[in-house]
Amino acid sequence: MNQTAFAQIEAYMKDCMNDSAHDREHVYRVLYFAMDIAKTEGGVTRDVLIAACLMHDTGRAEQLQNPQLRHEQVGSRKALRFLLAMGWPEADAAHVADCIATHRFRSDNPPRSLEAKILFDADKLDAVGAMGIARTLQYKGTVSQPLYTLDAQGRVSDGDGDAQPSFFQEYKYKLEKLYGRFYTQRGAELAGGQRQAAAAFFRQPAFAGACLL
Amino acid sequence: MNQTAFAQIEAYMKDCMNDSAHDREHVYRVLYFAMDIAKTEGGVTRDVLIAACLMHDTGRAEQLQNPQLRHEQVGSRKALRFLLAMGWPEADAAHVADCIATHRFRSDNPPRSLEAKILFDADKLDAVGAMGIARTLQYKGTVSQPLYTLDAQGRVSDGDGDAQPSFFQEYKYKLEKLYGRFYTQRGAELAGGQRQAAAAFFRQPAFAGACLL
Repeated sequence: MNQTAFAQIEAYMKDCMNDSAHDREHVYRVLYFAMDIAKTEGGVTRDVLIAACLMHDTGRAEQLQNPQLRHEQVGSRKALRFLLAMGWPEADAAHVADCIATHRFRSDNPPRSLEAKILFDADKLDAVGAMGIARTLQYKGTVSQPLYTLDAQGRVSDGDGDAQPSFFQEYKYKLEKLYGRFYTQRGAELAGGQRQAAAAFFRQPAFAGACLL
Repeated sequence: MNQTAFAQIEAYMKDCMNDSAHDREHVYRVLYFAMDIAKTEGGVTRDVLIAACLMHDTGRAEQLQNPQLRHEQVGSRKALRFLLAMGWPEADAAHVADCIATHRFRSDNPPRSLEAKILFDADKLDAVGAMGIARTLQYKGTVSQPLYTLDAQGRVSDGDGDAQPSFFQEYKYKLEKLYGRFYTQRGAELAGGQRQAAAAFFRQPAFAGACLL
C-alpha cells in the first residue's frame, strides 16, 4: 500500500474513533501485532490486512450509541463503502469487509481467510494480559458498567456465569478464555506470555474480598 | 445512628451515585474501611463518620456534568442541607460537611478533625493497589481519557509530569504517591499491603512498550 492510500484510510479511521478503550492507539497496536504475525505466515495479502486493521473498529461509535447494533457488521459495511469509493477492486474491498465482519470474539461468524485470522488474533492480543485488563476496565467505565455485581445473598460474585454485565463477568466470560482461541501460532505464543499478568491482577485479594476487610 | 436514619441517608446516597468508579459499592467499601480504622482510634464520633462516608461522593454527578465544579464542595453542601432537613444538630451536620469538603486528594484543604482524617484515609484505601488501578481505569473510560499519551517524538509517555490527562498520568500523579499520604496508622498499614499489586501492574512490559513489539 502506498503512503497516500495509507494516509487516506488512516484519516478515515481517526474520524471514526471515539471511545478510550478503542482509540487510535488500539488500532496502531493491532496493526503492529498483525504485521508481526504476518512475518511468520506465508502468502499474506498485506494491503487487505493493513486496511482491515485500520478500519476494524470504525463501527464502534454506532454500537456505543445503539447497543443493538454490532460494531463488526457496521464497520464492515463502512469499510466496504469507503474502499470502493477510493477505487479499490471489489474483491479486495469485499475481503477487507469480510475480515472486519469476523473479528469479534462474541460471534458465531469465525474468521476464514488468513488475513481475517490474523486480524482476529492481532485484535485479541490487545485484550490479553495487563493491556486487556486496562482496556476492559476503561470500556466498563465508558458504558457505565460496574466492577462486580452482588449475588442474591449480597456477596460479591466472582463473575462466573453472571447474567449482569460487569468487569468480573467480562473477565470470566472473555478475558480468561482468550488464550485458547488464537488462530495463528505466533498469536498464541505472544498471548501466552501475557497470561500471568492478567491472572495475577484478577486474583488480587482486594477483589476477592471486595466488600470485606 | 439508628437503622432508620442510616436507611434515609443511604437512600439519598444511592440516588446521587451514577458513575461506575464511584458507585454505591465504592461507598460501602469506604464505610467498611472507615469502621476498621475507627476501631484503632479513640474518641471517634461514629454518626458523623458514617454520614460523611455515605455522602462523601454525592457531588460526583455534578462534577461529571461540569468539570469546573469540585465534587467535594458540591457534596459538602448537599450533605449539610440534607442532614439539617433530617433534623440533625447544626454542629454535627457542619462537621459532616467539613469531612466531605476535605476528603479530596487534589486539594489544598487537608482534613483536620479525626473523622475527616478517617474519611480521607478510607476513601484513599479504595484507590490503592489493584482496586485503585481498576477504579482509575474505569473512571478514565467514563470521562473519555486515554490510557497514555504520546510525547513530541511519538513515543509512549510513562505519564511522569504529563500535562495531558491519561491513566499513566494519573498513576504517576496520584496512585503512586498515595502511600505516603495517609493520616492514620491503620490506613497507612492497610495501604502498604496493596502497594506491590499496583506497582507490578503498572510495570507490565505490555505498557512499557505499548506501541512496540
